[in-house]
Order: sequence, then structure tokens, then C-alpha cells
Amino acid sequence: MDMKREHNWKGRVFIGASLDGQIARPDGNIDWLTDPAPGPSHANITSSTKVEAWDTFFPSVDHLVMGRGTYEKVATFDAWPYEGKKVMVLSTTLEPGDGRIAIVRSLEDAVRRLDEAGAEQVYVDGGQVIQAFLRADLIDEISIGWAPVLIGSGRPLFGALDADIQLALVASNASSGGMVHATYRVHRGHPSQD
Amino acid sequence: MDMKREHNWKGRVFIGASLDGQIARPDGNIDWLTDPAPGPSHANITSSTKVEAWDTFFPSVDHLVMGRGTYEKVATFDAWPYEGKKVMVLSTTLEPGDGRIAIVRSLEDAVRRLDEAGAEQVYVDGGQVIQAFLRADLIDEISIGWAPVLIGSGRPLFGALDADIQLALVASNASSGGMVHATYRVHRGHPSQD
Repeated sequence: MDMKREHNWKGRVFIGASLDGQIARPDGNIDWLTDPAPGPSHANITSSTKVEAWDTFFPSVDHLVMGRGTYEKVATFDAWPYEGKKVMVLSTTLEPGDGRIAIVRSLEDAVRRLDEAGAEQVYVDGGQVIQAFLRADLIDEISIGWAPVLIGSGRPLFGALDADIQLALVASNASSGGMVHATYRVHRGHPSQD
Repeated sequence: MDMKREHNWKGRVFIGASLDGQIARPDGNIDWLTDPAPGPSHANITSSTKVEAWDTFFPSVDHLVMGRGTYEKVATFDAWPYEGKKVMVLSTTLEPGDGRIAIVRSLEDAVRRLDEAGAEQVYVDGGQVIQAFLRADLIDEISIGWAPVLIGSGRPLFGALDADIQLALVASNASSGGMVHATYRVHRGHPSQD
């Protein structure tokens, strides 16, 4: 199924990862990202480009698709951080009940609903969901912030693919705290799509 | 065994990886790095720092430690690329016979020989060997060049650790071909070493 050809929205990833490619510890903890260990002093580096910041990225998206793990983490926060956004949670087991979200049972279901809703900018979040969207060629843009730490194990950002995915580097910069940011556009001309 | 305290050399990593953290395909192929698919056009990005290039990195090292996989790949090349360097191959199975290398049977053996040889700058190469040196706190500097491609599977650069490793960002820049480079110093003040 070439889902890619049938819709008009962009799939966008905006995520922080440890330098060894984890987006959370095995138990979901992201303390290494939000509360980095004190000590390392980082070079002050300027760049001719700057990766889009959360402050402009988040307002630009109209839909979010996430996995159950990400949703259940966010649901414990004091405030719902996605006010004003359409949120889909991809889960085969989650029970309906939270009116703030729409539960979708499959990737095909998510894509159909995004198409029907006239989605334009879709923020795809969570390792499993990002990997599923990448495998289905539904991601257009990837922004990664690499945190200057190796955590050794956890929930990987990337996973298995059927074929290479070529990326075009759009922007890169370092920021305070030793983060290295890069934004890539998924290159649509690669041979596996011809 | 706190091997770190007993020697006077620096362990240095200088490596290219796919954005999904692989240093080679499952069969060892690095075509995605050396012969990237044509097509993607990358932003031209300048930075106030520049990661050390191979042309100055390689002359600065006196010893190399690599795994059997890396050695066997290199041994197929027309020319031996490590002329003038002391090369150790870490392998429990490799038979002696190639006078260009010293075979070491364990990490402890490698460390002892590096100490005895008065090694100063040690280039540590290959995923398994890099991971073993990182776990033993024998790496001082990591330079990574991220290639703008996802290959989905292969030989991972990083692996399991006993504790987080904090890094200090030293330099970062993008280069032609959409590579994003970053150099980190391993931060010695992290709590697990206090």
C-alpha cells in the first residue's frame, strides 16, 4: 500500500535523543534530557543556520499522532500540553474515555483519519510510531537534537527499514547545553521509490 | 578494575555512522558512507568551529586498536592503510601470521601492551571494540560524522553501558554531502566516577 501518494499532509518528527540514539530510558524516563547531569562545559558554537525551535514548531502543527506509551506519560502531567491540537493515539488496547484524544487502531486507520480531517502538519511522536511512519514513507521532515550523553539502553528512536531512506540536510546548529541539532528532509528521489 | 587510572594515553574514536547509529550494514558494507546515493541536495552550512579532519587526526595517532572484523576488511584493501602505526587487533580466534599487526586476546591485554609501549594517542576503531573501551572508561574523545541516511540495520556504533557517560561538546560543523560532525570529550566528573 503506497499510503504516501494519497494524502496532502506533512509528517514531521521533532525529538531529542541521546547520542546513542535512545529517546527514553527503558522505563520511559527522560531525565538525561530534561535534567542533564551538571559538570560538562560545552563549546559555544555558532552556525549559519538554525534548526527550528519548539516555540515555532509546535504552533505550526495541527495534528499529533503518538503511541500509547507517550500518551500515558503525558496524561500524568498536571496540564494537558496539547490544548487546541487534534491528538491521535495509536494503540490496539487503549480503551476510549479520554475526550481529548482519538484512538486509532492501525496505521492505515490513522492515515485515513488524517486525510479525512484535512490535516496539514502532523507531528509524529514516540519511537514505535515514528518507526512505523518511516517504514510507510509517511515522514517528510526529521528534526533531532542530540543530547551530549550516552545512556546505554532504552527506547530507540530508529529501527528496522525495508530500504535505505536518503535524507537532505536542511539546517544544523549547536545550542547551549552541548545539544547538536539537525533538520533533514526525506529525499523522495531515492531508487526504491522510482 | 579501574583500568583508566593506570595509563597515560588517550583513547580516541573517529568514525562515520548513519543517522540511525550504524557503522556498517549487517555484512560490513559501508557503501552508504563512501558512495552515497545521488540526489539529495544539502544546505551549505558554516560554523564557528570545525571538527578535526582525518588528514590531521590520523597522523596524530601512534597506536590503533581494532576488532577482527575491521582488520579483515582492511586486509582486503590493495594497500595497508596503517603504515607506520602500531596496530593491535583484539580477537580471541585470529591466528598469528600477519607481521603488520599484534594480536591481543583481551581488553586487559590490550591496555597492558599500550601502557608498556608508551602509547600516547590511541585510535580505537570498530563497534565492538569502541563499546568495550567505553564500558571500561578508556575513551577520552569521540568524533562522529553522521551521514544523512537511515540504513535500518547493521553494526551499531554504541551499545550497553553500566552507567551514563556524560560528554562535553568540543566542536560541531556540517560538511559537504550533508554530513554533520561533532567532537565530544568524555567528561570525567560524572557521579559514577566520584
